[in-house]
Amino acid sequence: MLLFTMKPLYIIKIGGNVIDNSENLYHFLKDFTALDGHKILVHGGGKLATTISEQMGIEAHLVDGRRITDIETLRVVTMVYAGLINKNIVAQLQRFGTNAIGLTGADGNFIKAAKRPVKTIDYGFVGDLNDTSVNAQNISKLMEAGFTPAFCALTHDGEGQMLNTNADTIASALAVALSPLYETTLIYCFEKKGVLKDIDDEQSLIQDIDPARYEELKKEKIIHSGMLPKLDNAFTAIACGVKAVIIGHAQELSKIRQNQPFGTRLSK
Amino acid sequence: MLLFTMKPLYIIKIGGNVIDNSENLYHFLKDFTALDGHKILVHGGGKLATTISEQMGIEAHLVDGRRITDIETLRVVTMVYAGLINKNIVAQLQRFGTNAIGLTGADGNFIKAAKRPVKTIDYGFVGDLNDTSVNAQNISKLMEAGFTPAFCALTHDGEGQMLNTNADTIASALAVALSPLYETTLIYCFEKKGVLKDIDDEQSLIQDIDPARYEELKKEKIIHSGMLPKLDNAFTAIACGVKAVIIGHAQELSKIRQNQPFGTRLSK
Repeated sequence: MLLFTMKPLYIIKIGGNVIDNSENLYHFLKDFTALDGHKILVHGGGKLATTISEQMGIEAHLVDGRRITDIETLRVVTMVYAGLINKNIVAQLQRFGTNAIGLTGADGNFIKAAKRPVKTIDYGFVGDLNDTSVNAQNISKLMEAGFTPAFCALTHDGEGQMLNTNADTIASALAVALSPLYETTLIYCFEKKGVLKDIDDEQSLIQDIDPARYEELKKEKIIHSGMLPKLDNAFTAIACGVKAVIIGHAQELSKIRQNQPFGTRLSK
Repeated sequence: MLLFTMKPLYIIKIGGNVIDNSENLYHFLKDFTALDGHKILVHGGGKLATTISEQMGIEAHLVDGRRITDIETLRVVTMVYAGLINKNIVAQLQRFGTNAIGLTGADGNFIKAAKRPVKTIDYGFVGDLNDTSVNAQNISKLMEAGFTPAFCALTHDGEGQMLNTNADTIASALAVALSPLYETTLIYCFEKKGVLKDIDDEQSLIQDIDPARYEELKKEKIIHSGMLPKLDNAFTAIACGVKAVIIGHAQELSKIRQNQPFGTRLSK
């Protein structure tokens, strides 16, 4: 029997713990390069935006303990995410042999967001995504032309305005939108080995979670607080066509290539 | 008789006088969008890098009156050129309907430079270009996939290091490298109507200059000082295959589309 098989695609998100440490970043980008096939990198901001803001004398603007992206903050994150961090990542990837192109959602009109409407809090220049935000066809064209996209946590509104968008959200939206075109695995890299039964014991890794097991783990209160929204989002992505979501340690990415178990794998 | 005809390509460089004035930039990007066919934008830095440096408390490092790109300055220009300026230009272009992708030379390995060797002065992280710097095939792939490149004045060394490279030089190197693939016109936009017989009289525009006329103009001392290196470089680009170099006013770009004489046209 002949089946139409889609090409595999890895979408890998890294956060501050990788970006802020040049040695971690070096090893991660080397392992990223070694992964075969189509791949997309998504990176957050790390501490650098805060450092540069302070150096420029820009004060963080908080409302009810939440950070607001005012126009000054937007300027800083556009400089730091799309300039300093993104281009240094691209230059490193090129050094290792990945033909990366550094992107925001404005580039190629790849991710168009809507400025978050003001309800009780005005979050400022923050962009929310919806089902039509990601231009999967354009991203696919770029990849099929031989390039590896490296996205930072910025989008645009299509009217000339850049917007700040959470990197986890971008990674998840990319994965869902590209799933009809590629067999997509979404990987969140962080500083733990994955979802742990006991947060203080790295040996207590849960290797696989399907929706039924997820319900059990929630009932048993093994998964709670901060992990809940992350896993809820992951299972939503899976319900929307993403093959699997892996949550694992950035320094263990090479295990995928070596066919070793890596992190916690969430799937149907 | 059937001849193989190459597609036309416009490579258009804008400098600080366009970038620093949001109204000028708005009109320029609108006119740029209206130009048919393949095109590449190259932009310099403007005053913003200096403003941000000052805000961050970074002092300009001068040696013999020449600005040095030390590591702090490189960080600032990477933020300002590749982040703030480039992504705002891309967002504006998208608004007008140009499917732009904002780039440095590191992206797609499009422009690989060599760090300027230290002779009498150490210029720091400055990248010089040579005949093999521009990856014309990769840039062509990007354009043929439907994207319009927007380059800022940064390159990389292929070893993970970003470098600062003059925007005029980037525009010229792109034009020469892409001439075997496209019928390339290189346009330098600035704040004058073109090469003027009398610098104080905008009506004294010289519309066409060929190499013979250029020799005359130099002998008559009509072209001198600052204009000489610009025109020397332009005629070198033409000798290397660029169809024409136009030097004109940023706010008059629409004349090309209207088939009206625009600026000073240098050609064989």
